[in-house]
Amino acid sequence: MTRFAITLEYDGRPFMGWQHQDHGPSVQQAVENAIKSITQQEIRVFAAGRTDAGVHALGMRAHFDLETRLTPFRLMEGLNAGLRPHPVAVLACDIVDDEWHARFNCIGRRYVYKITNRRAPLTLDKGQSWQVARPLDAGLMHDAAQILVGQHDFTTFRSTHCQAQSPVKTLDSISVTRFGEEIEVEVAARSFLHHQVRSMVGCLKLVGDGKWTRDDLLNALKAKDRDALGFNAPPDGLYFVDAIYPAS
Amino acid sequence: MTRFAITLEYDGRPFMGWQHQDHGPSVQQAVENAIKSITQQEIRVFAAGRTDAGVHALGMRAHFDLETRLTPFRLMEGLNAGLRPHPVAVLACDIVDDEWHARFNCIGRRYVYKITNRRAPLTLDKGQSWQVARPLDAGLMHDAAQILVGQHDFTTFRSTHCQAQSPVKTLDSISVTRFGEEIEVEVAARSFLHHQVRSMVGCLKLVGDGKWTRDDLLNALKAKDRDALGFNAPPDGLYFVDAIYPAS
Repeated sequence: MTRFAITLEYDGRPFMGWQHQDHGPSVQQAVENAIKSITQQEIRVFAAGRTDAGVHALGMRAHFDLETRLTPFRLMEGLNAGLRPHPVAVLACDIVDDEWHARFNCIGRRYVYKITNRRAPLTLDKGQSWQVARPLDAGLMHDAAQILVGQHDFTTFRSTHCQAQSPVKTLDSISVTRFGEEIEVEVAARSFLHHQVRSMVGCLKLVGDGKWTRDDLLNALKAKDRDALGFNAPPDGLYFVDAIYPAS
Repeated sequence: MTRFAITLEYDGRPFMGWQHQDHGPSVQQAVENAIKSITQQEIRVFAAGRTDAGVHALGMRAHFDLETRLTPFRLMEGLNAGLRPHPVAVLACDIVDDEWHARFNCIGRRYVYKITNRRAPLTLDKGQSWQVARPLDAGLMHDAAQILVGQHDFTTFRSTHCQAQSPVKTLDSISVTRFGEEIEVEVAARSFLHHQVRSMVGCLKLVGDGKWTRDDLLNALKAKDRDALGFNAPPDGLYFVDAIYPAS
């Protein structure tokens, strides 16, 4: 058996999320079906993170074990052929150590959340960004966001369906930057709670449009109560960007 | 009657192009239907350029005459509501002089053509970029492209369906720039022939992947013969970016 690590890019719109679902298509199933189509093997694929329905990935990492004589390059080409017409692409494929695990070895995850701050509806970016009509002050959002950095009980920013054992997480960094009408929120942490990024972005939007102050955000964090959440941003603007592993 | 000028952004994929077509939806029809939905008036909309099927716009300019008491802002909001669910958005709306004409007053047009230079198929950018698997040398493409600048007979780069009276056009500038796996070709001219940008990009791709030399491109231009065309790039990567008018 050979363990392969792959890097995936996908458009999350047609999927119920990364993970297998009884009620609709998943990215995981699409990748497993592609592997089966070229190797006739039913194998399980493990990813660094489980993105929700409608959430995208620019650099999701995953691994699987396969009995094959295919080189990583040929396997990648075969998977990309087998994945059509799903909007999922294998950007890289390598043989890794048998102990390497996409999820358990991952020591850092980066997400970007894209907001399009304008009145006009989205066209080319429909489903790929969150359109916010009210003018947002990205500077205020960035300053307030720094409250969230460090180790906190993020219960307020956690989905009621979150399966993590503890609501305590350490946010390594968060930045809010405006590029014309686009606002990008970049976050990095070892791991995140379910809906944590969308919930943080939803509350920062309230800071940006003046409905919340920096103190309101601080109080929401301190409340450790899902009912203190101001807003949960839609999945459209969320991208899993990168998974980080220790240098081997 | 009041003449309004609008700036449009659209995803060209669901349309047969800007112009009215008997056999499918057009952006022009979508905008005219939206105007009718809020004013009950059947009016004609004129655009700076007529994009082909599948070609996008980031800043198409257009105008129309309307009997209305709506302010430009309210008209814009109404049009954006009336355009749903089409991927067409009105980014700006202003009252202009009765003589102002989106097409005839336009003294400059800018297009961008996006290439994604990688083996993996497109996911998030499907239909919004041209995926080219063979490695392209953007520097070679840029240097060769300069051959096309200036006044030339662009018959080689002109669709056989082109209705322009003369194949002679003046290309003001063309640049080819790589941003990671993305290559952007930016072009500017007073006006272009039908398929001119796509045909120029198609031939530059041949230069970029080594199939053509700079001299091959020069000979194609000199041939003034559609049969000398190397390749016509698909509409996916083409964006009408901006229309320029004399300062009034």
